[in-house]
Amino acid sequence: MSYAGQVISWTGKRPKRVEIPRLKPRGEKRPTTKVDIADLTPEPLPYLGQAAYIQLGMFESLSRAVTTAPDLSAKEGLSTAAGLALSKHHALIAEIRRRGSDPAEVMRPFVPGFDHFRAMTMGDDWYELLLGCYLTAGLLDDFFIRLSSGLPGDVGPRAGQILGEDSGTDVVVSELRGGIAADPKLASRLAMWGRRLVGDTLLLARSAMHASGNTTRDELRIEPVFTELIAAHTRRMDGLGLTA
Amino acid sequence: MSYAGQVISWTGKRPKRVEIPRLKPRGEKRPTTKVDIADLTPEPLPYLGQAAYIQLGMFESLSRAVTTAPDLSAKEGLSTAAGLALSKHHALIAEIRRRGSDPAEVMRPFVPGFDHFRAMTMGDDWYELLLGCYLTAGLLDDFFIRLSSGLPGDVGPRAGQILGEDSGTDVVVSELRGGIAADPKLASRLAMWGRRLVGDTLLLARSAMHASGNTTRDELRIEPVFTELIAAHTRRMDGLGLTA
Repeated sequence: MSYAGQVISWTGKRPKRVEIPRLKPRGEKRPTTKVDIADLTPEPLPYLGQAAYIQLGMFESLSRAVTTAPDLSAKEGLSTAAGLALSKHHALIAEIRRRGSDPAEVMRPFVPGFDHFRAMTMGDDWYELLLGCYLTAGLLDDFFIRLSSGLPGDVGPRAGQILGEDSGTDVVVSELRGGIAADPKLASRLAMWGRRLVGDTLLLARSAMHASGNTTRDELRIEPVFTELIAAHTRRMDGLGLTA
Repeated sequence: MSYAGQVISWTGKRPKRVEIPRLKPRGEKRPTTKVDIADLTPEPLPYLGQAAYIQLGMFESLSRAVTTAPDLSAKEGLSTAAGLALSKHHALIAEIRRRGSDPAEVMRPFVPGFDHFRAMTMGDDWYELLLGCYLTAGLLDDFFIRLSSGLPGDVGPRAGQILGEDSGTDVVVSELRGGIAADPKLASRLAMWGRRLVGDTLLLARSAMHASGNTTRDELRIEPVFTELIAAHTRRMDGLGLTA
């Protein structure tokens, strides 16, 4: 099933067809709407638990990409990216411990959902795995950084700082570009895969939000955030020469 | 095929049956023979290339153990161990670059042999994988630290320092002990697996040495080193409650 051109209703009901925003010409300023999403940000511990488990999953996916890499240079760069995801995971774990909680307990509720997500977004070959690592990590890091502004005390800035660190994905981009340049069929397969990935990832992001119960107000607050996320996703696809 | 009780001829010919040294009672001092193995130490770049690729493989095996771990606490500890192997790999890569060489080029000759070794020592389940990570990394780290004393200039001390860093294997030991305590059948299967692993690992170590061409002299120099490696291996098996 493809999510092409279909955007998830942010409150989890009735999907509707909308146009995914196209990239504007470079240099043109995009309007940035800052929305207060504090009401929709989960409590600090669930936030940290989910963010930490996602980074662990990113590490696992990148490790798999290391193991299945076709050559040593790719292995080398991907192992660095895997190490950076692991560092983020451990830094978030340290934040959980700093609050006197057990990381395993705090992460546990998010295991089934995220494991399912990982299985769905693993892809059928190395390139699909790479695109999955790049697009889902990009979108989820953006999303959790955005959510962090709604956290109380210093946890938001600290988590935002951790998640904003370099992800070492340059190697992922250059491997994908190389593969796409060498095989035009791969480009169209990956473009389709990218549309599927963004749908699944937005659904996961939606589930990480705390619903206030007021559906209309929630939609109004969430929609601009998701529009930003999709725009950033479209720029990543565009950077690879893929149609979002 | 089991290598139980069989020791590889260090010069790669005619295996012969010998007794693997038994652990001496705790507290009794073991004689430590220091042997000059400078003649048998490879050149600095091949040494670094092989050591770096081995650490990358350790990282890959530990990552696999993270992915297949039955619970979050095990995942957590194993991901730390994977990160430490990756740090060693990257530190050794930095040493190769410091000498103006391309890490991929320098590692390449060791890929087929070590990939084959990893495939042979992967095991059939999570516990066999853990035992493989613990015993082969322990033996190979000891061996490469020992070899480093024969390297010219500062490369030996630098490599020895990198390889001697903590490997974070406490979690591997405690998971193995837990599994063994819960299932006596696992103990006998793992004891057999440990004997197989030591045979394969000693063969790999043997292949990393530079043969002088004088078989008798080589044997005389290598034998005490391998006796030390086997004694340390026996202590690791003993620490798990397994018969070496």
